[in-house]
Amino acid sequence: MEDSSEESRGWGAQTWAHLSAVRQRSPLIQCITNFVSMDLMANTLLSAGASPAMVHSLHEIPDFTPNVQALCVNVGTLTDDWIPAMKSAAKLAVRLGKPWVLDPVAAGASGFRLRACLELVGLRPSVVRGNGSEIIALSKASVGPTKGVDSSHESTDAVEAAKSLAQASGSIVAVSGAVDIVTDGERVVGAQNGVAMMQRITATGCSVTALIAAFVAVDPLHAFEATASALSVFGIAGEIGMDMAKGPASLRMHLLDSLYGLDQATVLRRVNIINLL
Amino acid sequence: MEDSSEESRGWGAQTWAHLSAVRQRSPLIQCITNFVSMDLMANTLLSAGASPAMVHSLHEIPDFTPNVQALCVNVGTLTDDWIPAMKSAAKLAVRLGKPWVLDPVAAGASGFRLRACLELVGLRPSVVRGNGSEIIALSKASVGPTKGVDSSHESTDAVEAAKSLAQASGSIVAVSGAVDIVTDGERVVGAQNGVAMMQRITATGCSVTALIAAFVAVDPLHAFEATASALSVFGIAGEIGMDMAKGPASLRMHLLDSLYGLDQATVLRRVNIINLL
Amino acid sequence: MEDSSEESRGWGAQTWAHLSAVRQRSPLIQCITNFVSMDLMANTLLSAGASPAMVHSLHEIPDFTPNVQALCVNVGTLTDDWIPAMKSAAKLAVRLGKPWVLDPVAAGASGFRLRACLELVGLRPSVVRGNGSEIIALSKASVGPTKGVDSSHESTDAVEAAKSLAQASGSIVAVSGAVDIVTDGERVVGAQNGVAMMQRITATGCSVTALIAAFVAVDPLHAFEATASALSVFGIAGEIGMDMAKGPASLRMHLLDSLYGLDQATVLRRVNIINLL
Repeated sequence: MEDSSEESRGWGAQTWAHLSAVRQRSPLIQCITNFVSMDLMANTLLSAGASPAMVHSLHEIPDFTPNVQALCVNVGTLTDDWIPAMKSAAKLAVRLGKPWVLDPVAAGASGFRLRACLELVGLRPSVVRGNGSEIIALSKASVGPTKGVDSSHESTDAVEAAKSLAQASGSIVAVSGAVDIVTDGERVVGAQNGVAMMQRITATGCSVTALIAAFVAVDPLHAFEATASALSVFGIAGEIGMDMAKGPASLRMHLLDSLYGLDQATVLRRVNIINLL
Repeated sequence: MEDSSEESRGWGAQTWAHLSAVRQRSPLIQCITNFVSMDLMANTLLSAGASPAMVHSLHEIPDFTPNVQALCVNVGTLTDDWIPAMKSAAKLAVRLGKPWVLDPVAAGASGFRLRACLELVGLRPSVVRGNGSEIIALSKASVGPTKGVDSSHESTDAVEAAKSLAQASGSIVAVSGAVDIVTDGERVVGAQNGVAMMQRITATGCSVTALIAAFVAVDPLHAFEATASALSVFGIAGEIGMDMAKGPASLRMHLLDSLYGLDQATVLRRVNIINLL
Repeated sequence: MEDSSEESRGWGAQTWAHLSAVRQRSPLIQCITNFVSMDLMANTLLSAGASPAMVHSLHEIPDFTPNVQALCVNVGTLTDDWIPAMKSAAKLAVRLGKPWVLDPVAAGASGFRLRACLELVGLRPSVVRGNGSEIIALSKASVGPTKGVDSSHESTDAVEAAKSLAQASGSIVAVSGAVDIVTDGERVVGAQNGVAMMQRITATGCSVTALIAAFVAVDPLHAFEATASALSVFGIAGEIGMDMAKGPASLRMHLLDSLYGLDQATVLRRVNIINLL
């Protein structure tokens, strides 16, 4: 118990350091994302102190991507005309040593989507964040092609899939759920912040992926820790927001306000990240 | 008067049954919709208990559309590259016996848009929901081509146009306005819930069309009744939201919160649907 | 001092006249804008009393643009397939004597974007509104091509660039910042309303550009004055919203509610526009 308490203190300090660095440096995050999430994602980054740039034209990547601190790619409303820019930006990010983060939304929903996601995973994202079903779909397919299914899984059901995907891809893999799982293929931690009603707000998953990009941008050598920090911070903002919310729409507002206003004492007290393995 | 009161009791029980079924079964609703409405539409479906999926790539329809419980097509920010997916998804839905709902936004605003809407109407949507001007534009054009006009009409001015469109198309036709009209070409009911300020929030019309899709998804054999229920529920959420609102933006938030929290007693007390014919 | 007070009284009355005219005439504003801003832009126009239309298909412009009172073009999430419609609508607006307003988002972020913005400036927008960096990028490039930079400038650093761009283009040029600058190339006024936190809400800049379009739509012969009025009104709505806000997300909501509810006494008391030159 002492151990777990010390452990949490360590994570609390680290999480606060990450959030403070985002606020201070305001990293520029290029987002190639879906139409549904653009508004909430941009506002999440702004509320956290980062600087969002929704730039997705293939023609702009050579000029623009070198100036960003991280890239966030999200396949939510994918059509094939968006894929070349996603790949081009990801390749350039890797070549320039910049972190990039992948959100494989509904990876198993179609063969088209699964193939696109697998090709993107092959471009070595720093972090892949999805829900249980998405990570399981990617993980299975990395062994042999399979048509994704739409069934929902608990994040804890996806721990082995996440580890296997992390080992195969070299990426940090995060699985959102009642407990958010983060793994590098060996270590596994659980970020236990957040409230269930966040799943009744569209694009919260997309937005926390962008927040991960911002956190990794300020600590690129510790993507594992930065990912856990971002998941915890977003969850804490949801917990505080929930105290004032009367439903999903007011929770969305209060979550962003809370993210903007989070102070050190609150972060240190509330961060709830534990070693699972 | 007794009659009307009994009538309302019947509609109230039916409306609550529809909402309860949506919450319990969480139907998956594929939305091929405009850029403006995606966020509010997804959040409306989530607040009602349904599961939205904004999937519009032509390549995904064969894999994905068979898994959904209903389809919502909305032409708000139409360009020609979106039309093939709209048609393909609609055709597949019909072939698989799944309900689909059409929102012919600004149908009369251009020849391009009117033609696209008429072609979609020809694919036998379960329900078409528009405002008075849109339904009149569609109805006139189904007789002889005409360039749509941008003038606004009361929903009650469009009753004959709605009936005629319903008869010609085989669809349930709903006309939004101070009173929302629903007709199958013979029966006509008026859903008298809602508040005027909802028209000062973008995409409320689009969102109620998606809600209709969710309600029809859980009761596909009674699309007429499900459409009236959905219009009434959305209107009630607006009425309750209005008690707390200080303007259109807070109304939008309170409406979604209220939709999420609606209980049986409130639905039974507030549903205001009457036979007009 | 008396002079400055009289000056403000003059601007106050004029600003109120513009807002009243928008509410009364509800001008139809065609917006060809980016994916991030569509929702907030449409809601801003609705809250101000105008009528937004997000119509961007090339095929619709001949039918639709003649019916609008003003056009707003915004290059935020530009790809090359959007440029023909932007140009076509702008040309038609000019030919029909309708005002159009350009928002050159991130003009200096890439060569692709800068070229597109310069071509649009060449189509003689009534008003160009950007931040300091964007206006400086456009102004420099109008002398000789240069790759834009992403550095941020105070609006006051951009006064000379704005004047020079106004003279070269024939457009009114507005520069947003702590003080909003408006110039026709000779006159320069500063609109000193607004609060800093508005910069932590995505698409507020895009939205005020659309509001400028609505104000110019009701007073096209006085685009300079209408631009200053719109900037001041949006800033006042932000100031009032800030009294109730707990962070950026609640500020966004309260800003729109306040815009909707603004009354004459508040406008007259709060308008803070001064001659700078």
